[in-house]
Amino acid sequence: MKERKLRMGMVGGGIGSFIGPIHRQAAMLDNHIELVCGCFSSHPEVSRRSGATYGLPENRVYDTYEEMFRQEMQLPADQRMEIVSIVTPNKYHIQPALMALDCGMHVVLDKPLTLTLEEARQLTRKVEETGLQMAVTYTYSAYPAVKEARARIARGELGKLRRLYVEYTQGWLSQRIGVQAGNLSLWRIDPELGGTGGGIADIGTHAFHLAEHVTGQCVTELCSEMSKFSPNIQVPDDGTAFLHFDGGMKGCLTATQIAKGDNNYIRIRVYGDKGGIDWLQPDPNKLILKGFNEHEQVICIGNDTNLSEIALWNTRTPGGHPEGYIEAFANIYRNFALTVLALQQGETPSPLMLDFPTVYDGLRGMQFIETMEASNLNTAAKWTKWIE
Amino acid sequence: MKERKLRMGMVGGGIGSFIGPIHRQAAMLDNHIELVCGCFSSHPEVSRRSGATYGLPENRVYDTYEEMFRQEMQLPADQRMEIVSIVTPNKYHIQPALMALDCGMHVVLDKPLTLTLEEARQLTRKVEETGLQMAVTYTYSAYPAVKEARARIARGELGKLRRLYVEYTQGWLSQRIGVQAGNLSLWRIDPELGGTGGGIADIGTHAFHLAEHVTGQCVTELCSEMSKFSPNIQVPDDGTAFLHFDGGMKGCLTATQIAKGDNNYIRIRVYGDKGGIDWLQPDPNKLILKGFNEHEQVICIGNDTNLSEIALWNTRTPGGHPEGYIEAFANIYRNFALTVLALQQGETPSPLMLDFPTVYDGLRGMQFIETMEASNLNTAAKWTKWIE
Amino acid sequence: MKERKLRMGMVGGGIGSFIGPIHRQAAMLDNHIELVCGCFSSHPEVSRRSGATYGLPENRVYDTYEEMFRQEMQLPADQRMEIVSIVTPNKYHIQPALMALDCGMHVVLDKPLTLTLEEARQLTRKVEETGLQMAVTYTYSAYPAVKEARARIARGELGKLRRLYVEYTQGWLSQRIGVQAGNLSLWRIDPELGGTGGGIADIGTHAFHLAEHVTGQCVTELCSEMSKFSPNIQVPDDGTAFLHFDGGMKGCLTATQIAKGDNNYIRIRVYGDKGGIDWLQPDPNKLILKGFNEHEQVICIGNDTNLSEIALWNTRTPGGHPEGYIEAFANIYRNFALTVLALQQGETPSPLMLDFPTVYDGLRGMQFIETMEASNLNTAAKWTKWIE
Amino acid sequence: MKERKLRMGMVGGGIGSFIGPIHRQAAMLDNHIELVCGCFSSHPEVSRRSGATYGLPENRVYDTYEEMFRQEMQLPADQRMEIVSIVTPNKYHIQPALMALDCGMHVVLDKPLTLTLEEARQLTRKVEETGLQMAVTYTYSAYPAVKEARARIARGELGKLRRLYVEYTQGWLSQRIGVQAGNLSLWRIDPELGGTGGGIADIGTHAFHLAEHVTGQCVTELCSEMSKFSPNIQVPDDGTAFLHFDGGMKGCLTATQIAKGDNNYIRIRVYGDKGGIDWLQPDPNKLILKGFNEHEQVICIGNDTNLSEIALWNTRTPGGHPEGYIEAFANIYRNFALTVLALQQGETPSPLMLDFPTVYDGLRGMQFIETMEASNLNTAAKWTKWIE
Repeated sequence: MKERKLRMGMVGGGIGSFIGPIHRQAAMLDNHIELVCGCFSSHPEVSRRSGATYGLPENRVYDTYEEMFRQEMQLPADQRMEIVSIVTPNKYHIQPALMALDCGMHVVLDKPLTLTLEEARQLTRKVEETGLQMAVTYTYSAYPAVKEARARIARGELGKLRRLYVEYTQGWLSQRIGVQAGNLSLWRIDPELGGTGGGIADIGTHAFHLAEHVTGQCVTELCSEMSKFSPNIQVPDDGTAFLHFDGGMKGCLTATQIAKGDNNYIRIRVYGDKGGIDWLQPDPNKLILKGFNEHEQVICIGNDTNLSEIALWNTRTPGGHPEGYIEAFANIYRNFALTVLALQQGETPSPLMLDFPTVYDGLRGMQFIETMEASNLNTAAKWTKWIE
Repeated sequence: MKERKLRMGMVGGGIGSFIGPIHRQAAMLDNHIELVCGCFSSHPEVSRRSGATYGLPENRVYDTYEEMFRQEMQLPADQRMEIVSIVTPNKYHIQPALMALDCGMHVVLDKPLTLTLEEARQLTRKVEETGLQMAVTYTYSAYPAVKEARARIARGELGKLRRLYVEYTQGWLSQRIGVQAGNLSLWRIDPELGGTGGGIADIGTHAFHLAEHVTGQCVTELCSEMSKFSPNIQVPDDGTAFLHFDGGMKGCLTATQIAKGDNNYIRIRVYGDKGGIDWLQPDPNKLILKGFNEHEQVICIGNDTNLSEIALWNTRTPGGHPEGYIEAFANIYRNFALTVLALQQGETPSPLMLDFPTVYDGLRGMQFIETMEASNLNTAAKWTKWIE
Repeated sequence: MKERKLRMGMVGGGIGSFIGPIHRQAAMLDNHIELVCGCFSSHPEVSRRSGATYGLPENRVYDTYEEMFRQEMQLPADQRMEIVSIVTPNKYHIQPALMALDCGMHVVLDKPLTLTLEEARQLTRKVEETGLQMAVTYTYSAYPAVKEARARIARGELGKLRRLYVEYTQGWLSQRIGVQAGNLSLWRIDPELGGTGGGIADIGTHAFHLAEHVTGQCVTELCSEMSKFSPNIQVPDDGTAFLHFDGGMKGCLTATQIAKGDNNYIRIRVYGDKGGIDWLQPDPNKLILKGFNEHEQVICIGNDTNLSEIALWNTRTPGGHPEGYIEAFANIYRNFALTVLALQQGETPSPLMLDFPTVYDGLRGMQFIETMEASNLNTAAKWTKWIE
Repeated sequence: MKERKLRMGMVGGGIGSFIGPIHRQAAMLDNHIELVCGCFSSHPEVSRRSGATYGLPENRVYDTYEEMFRQEMQLPADQRMEIVSIVTPNKYHIQPALMALDCGMHVVLDKPLTLTLEEARQLTRKVEETGLQMAVTYTYSAYPAVKEARARIARGELGKLRRLYVEYTQGWLSQRIGVQAGNLSLWRIDPELGGTGGGIADIGTHAFHLAEHVTGQCVTELCSEMSKFSPNIQVPDDGTAFLHFDGGMKGCLTATQIAKGDNNYIRIRVYGDKGGIDWLQPDPNKLILKGFNEHEQVICIGNDTNLSEIALWNTRTPGGHPEGYIEAFANIYRNFALTVLALQQGETPSPLMLDFPTVYDGLRGMQFIETMEASNLNTAAKWTKWIE
């Protein structure tokens, strides 16, 4: 496959954006993508200032995404954007995504996929119709240690899976950066912009995706409780669920945004009848192996270590040189880019390249939100009174 | 109060016992108790060998606990046992406990209180009738760092409590020390000897007690799932529950004995609207404070530090000199012994002395098992099918 | 061997003592020793109050240690103290120790052995002449994980030893509990009472003993630097040394009491050509194994695990039930007591019983202080000016 | 300042290189630099294959660096490379660096600066003569948490600095990736290619730079020991030093490459009379604060936290989203690039931009190696024999 840089446009991600700079750095890291244009904000002035800061010529910075797609399609095929990265609030995912697909462009879309499950179904159909690639940035499953966990489970090293714990705790809704005017993250708790799922959509879906990705099993039914702890909040900021998986494993998922003092604590533990694994995002380069011999073992990720092929493929540094969140994010962009490049050149992407979350992962995330909400409403029969 | 050593007898805890040596060391540590007699096993020969090893004269080592109480009551009041420590399998808790109380002896009883809730009610009535003291060895709430957490929450430092996570994971039922003939812990999974609660009775009650003790709130209703993962097991070896507390806090409790490779992992996290705490038994001398200022703070327990009165009372070493499980256990024995000594001398025990788990804590533990089982049976309405 | 309790007297360790309560609890824990008498303070009134608190009859609490030994020798042999625990400031080690040995009593002595090396030689000769037992409480080498490290190194598992790092950092001389009137630890920095070694004597000897105990090698020469950072301090509060060992290993030892915020941080790392070990006192129940396979391995101490005989002998709890400082201390008392009991009964103590630090370990500690001081004075030739 | 991408060429860093991919990713991450040409290997064929993989046109991939500079100088000023990144073995640093400077190009150079101190002096003079920028990739001082430590010390928060411990331990020379034919890192232990400093040059200089950078103090004299533990090795693979600093602080530096099982363990602790800091590269996003209040505090780096201006400038993600080694590396490239861009546009770079290690840091590293070697030879008077 001949190397060259894919030309990328962006929707959202302007100055002041929380996740925009991460997407840009992740896209740049491997030199497979160059940023050529964008509509970086719904405020044209912000979009223009952002474009200048990102080193773009003025004529490739657009006031609206509609204009961007229209104008770019006028450019010669070897100049116009080929892929788009959409990093807007959830409400503004579907329209630019549909338009990009209609223009023949491959899409990177932030999670959760859409505002509603119905939209997710619609977008999935469009991806299937166009045959184009879509990557959904469930970042946490792209850490090399998570890949190693998945590979070991897939190889059967844990035996028959029995028990999963996955948790994601944040405190931002209890903290100074909480519910204040001007906070750029506030759309996340506005049901109009972020959807009714609140924290379940924002972080619960990450935990859910991690669980299914690592174990290779799918949730078939669940029992949930969702809460609104923050004052005057309209969407849940906390949720818990028992999960039943199609492979017989049972899970417990917790996600909260009111865990005061917690930054971004994510942990997944899986136990089978032969052993267990434990991974914590605050220490992302380690994978703890449990029960395989009499001692606990700690894998320290590095491209000089004896890891699975897929973990090594997603590893960039020698052991002891920490990799972080941007590298995990970049793994998604790189694999997506290599897949697109291969397809453009008529080649079949390797399974390693194809290893990024797709529209189907996005769809399952939206189904998860919907099922969580349905179960939460089912309060009548769920609770047993204390027996004196 | 005049210091002297209380004379203690034991039921159970002979050679080969898992928890007996811990009880003995914990009882000895503070020089408030001396072991004077015992029936250490249901096998008379084991009892006798044990008594010799423990340095007891032959005539104070008994073949049955009935004989022990009978013979001891024949001794002069200043020689006979005053307190008894009962460390038998759950089935054999109630009879010696009732008999001891009838003999006017104070009792230390291992958890869970009894085999059934009905027995627990009966024992509670007997304690109330006799006015004697009973300590139940819920050890984990006796660590100084746990006391500090409780004191800070009681003082309102965390604000209104919102969310609790408590977990207790072990792997012994998945390990080489698992279900094998000769394993002295096997009574724990025999419903005849240990009760129907299985792992919920054995370790779930510890997690439950810790949650109520630390927060000062009581569970009012719950929603549980209990599982039997181990082959051919008759009692649950795993359970999870959502908890509702009378102070409005919501909790999630997990307990499992099939977490292969986990030794005895206990963790409790509590979040209020002003801050959170995090405590892990593998690192028991630390209490992590979250959200109180911009940094995470770690309290390192020591009797030279600025802790609450109750934490200091239960602390034995200067900062940086680790305390462990036996010291926590000894805190219960010491507080119990000082309470008995004070009462014997007509004094009112201080609140610090009275701080040990009582028959009421034991009763709540049995109610917890019963409520968990009732909720677990309520499967029909609990589950929501995945929404495609 | 027939079990019975040894009768112990104490010199020092009265109310307000830092280390006295630790000694008492450690002595009691295993039920092999009972406290029968003591001179707990150089202030008779404090001694008497202490004795009452410890539950002793008034006639066994003495105003001076001379009186104690004299009076106890008048008692019938089956009543008088058999062993003595001396926990006074360094200056007051040698006289009671010599007197005890002259009375035929076995001795537990706190470290460092004496005020001066000359005294240490004298005491060593006395121990040799009397043939009595002396235990010196170098506590940190008595943790089960440290025993395991020693056993693995002795078995050759690390191969040829190359490099050792041992460190002991405290901050008390920089903290609120620092140099203030009334601080009971102030004798430690008074050269009259604690010796000229200061922090090297107080904690440096612990680090030194740990290094020799774990590796089985002896220091043959060293290069040191000692410092006085605290204002107006007369003895060193900080020291560092390069060490050469008789087995070819090279070491680096650091000890400081001005590491503000450090409680009692002790760590030892040893690397051979086949692997390494890492032990940290703040997490004392773990032993980290390095380089034995591709992953780091963590031994979690427990009496249900596959440890060396000597580690198991010094282990009291199942895996996951933390042991601490008092248990380590108690291992010394128990092994000493069992050795004395065996000898009293004409039996040969087993190697497991004999495993406690002796007067020779104490002597080496004093030699270490002396050699550190000599090297520190040798400043002329040690330093190389920066080469521009 | 107008944003645009600087055109970069590379010397070294071809396929199979250890550090080359890190340099490339670090240079790309912020979109301030594009790779336009290179001589990636001393083997022309490897250089060509590497260039193709990196997406370069054939005519910008060169067989020798001499050819590269010559050809590039023929290109129009707005096409030719403006900066060069030199990532060759130490022996091949000075010639391309001098040539680049003579061509008016700014230079990024891997550490240590050169093969010998004499070369370092020569290169420093050349940088001074040309007035061009040179960045030396002492990466570990570019982590945001390290910047925060430096800022706090500079503000006087630790008070008068007393004691520093800095350590860097690796095990690669004791491991399977050790001294084997074909190992691309072997030049590091070849005195012809890597210099006589061995591990002191390779990793000791990192530890040394970290110490001076964090504390703002300079070493004035030292006392060292260097060792060759690995069989048949010609250069030291281990070293230790006592350090005296111009501000009165005393330090202890350890560096080793035979710590079997250690990946890349770097730690720096600094204690002043008001408090201390502790930073560990395996957990690079945390900075531990000691002694400032009664509890240990842990700063968790994030661009949403209250850090110093310089730490925030070098931070890319919100709290709880780990940053790693590549981000630290990228901070050097970004600051260097922004400095060059500012100077090109006639602007004065801000202090934030100018914050990267320069030729003077490189020169001090070479002086450190030389002084370490001189002290090591001074063995006669350094050692004090053990005093019996």
